[in-house]
Amino acid sequence: MVIAKKILPLSRVYCLLEPGPVVLVTTSLKGKANIMTMSWHTMMDFEPPVVGCVVSGNNHSFAALKATQECVLNIPAMNLAKQVVGVGNCSGRTLDKFKKFNLTPTQASLVAPPLIAECFANLECKVVDTRMVNKYNFFVLEVLKAWIGPDRKYPCTLHHLGRGAFMVAGRTIKFPSKKA
Amino acid sequence: MVIAKKILPLSRVYCLLEPGPVVLVTTSLKGKANIMTMSWHTMMDFEPPVVGCVVSGNNHSFAALKATQECVLNIPAMNLAKQVVGVGNCSGRTLDKFKKFNLTPTQASLVAPPLIAECFANLECKVVDTRMVNKYNFFVLEVLKAWIGPDRKYPCTLHHLGRGAFMVAGRTIKFPSKKA
Repeated sequence: MVIAKKILPLSRVYCLLEPGPVVLVTTSLKGKANIMTMSWHTMMDFEPPVVGCVVSGNNHSFAALKATQECVLNIPAMNLAKQVVGVGNCSGRTLDKFKKFNLTPTQASLVAPPLIAECFANLECKVVDTRMVNKYNFFVLEVLKAWIGPDRKYPCTLHHLGRGAFMVAGRTIKFPSKKA
Repeated sequence: MVIAKKILPLSRVYCLLEPGPVVLVTTSLKGKANIMTMSWHTMMDFEPPVVGCVVSGNNHSFAALKATQECVLNIPAMNLAKQVVGVGNCSGRTLDKFKKFNLTPTQASLVAPPLIAECFANLECKVVDTRMVNKYNFFVLEVLKAWIGPDRKYPCTLHHLGRGAFMVAGRTIKFPSKKA
C-alpha cells in the first residue's frame, strides 16, 4: 500500500531511528535504483540530523553510495517484513528489486535515489563524512528532508535479531521528560 | 534482581545490539564508577565485535571514557525501566548512581568499569578508534568479553522513542536464513 506523506520536522528524525528499526536504503547509480536492507545505523546528532551507518562493501549499494554520496533511508513497518527479508537476501547486481518485490519508487525532493512509497517514513540523505569508509564501511549521513505517513503512533517496526529473526515493536511506555 | 551470567561467544554479540536497545554504559575514573543511559550505538563489525557509539561531552561519563578508554555496555530489560530513565536524568558529577538506583556493581574480567548485575547482558569494551570523538563524540569500541543471563529468548528490551517514551520489545518473527 502506497502511503501519502507529509514533511516531518528534522528535529524529530531521531525519534524514528533511535529505537533501532531495520531500514531499507535506496541508492541510484546511472539512473538505476537499488534497495538494500540495513540495521547497522545510529543517530549521531539531533539537528541537522546526522546518522552513521555501515554499508558493507559486499553490497551492490556500496558502490552507488560511494560514487553518488546520496541515499534515502526508508523505514518499513511489519506489513513489509517479507520484502525486508527478500531485499536482504538478493543482489541488485542481477535484478530490479523494486519490480521483484512490488515496491513503488517515488521521486525524492532533494536527492536522486527514490523514496519507497510503501514505507511509513523516508529520509533523504547526503554523505557528509567518509573518514571511516575505508576501515569500517561506515558512512556519516546528514538527513536533508524527512517524510512521514499520517499515523500518529509509532508503527510496528522490525528489529533484526540475527539469523532470520526479527523483534516486532511492542507497546509504548511513557515517563515524565524534561524535553519538549 | 542480580542475574547469574555465562560467557556469550563474541560472534553472537550483534544479536544483542543490532535490534537497537537502550544500554547502560558503565565507566570508572580514579576508582569511582558511573552509569549513563545511551541509545546512540550501532554494530560496525561482527567478530571481533566492533560497536560505534555517541557519548555526549555533556555527560560526566565522557571524560572517564576518554581518559580510560574502557567501558561496559550493560543491557537492561523492561524491569529496569525506572532505573534507565532515572540514570538518564541525573549526573554522576554529584551522586553515586549505583547507590541511588539500587544497582549492583560486579567485577568485570578484562576492564576496570563494573558490570551491572541486574542487566541481562554485559559487554566489556575498550576504545579502538577515536578519530570521530572531536567532531561527533563518536567512540569506536571493541567488545572483549560478553556475558549473558540464562534466559534463551530475547528479553523485553527498551527502545527509546524520545521525550520520555520507550517502545518495549514485542514478539519475535522468524524467516528462513542462510546464516547459521
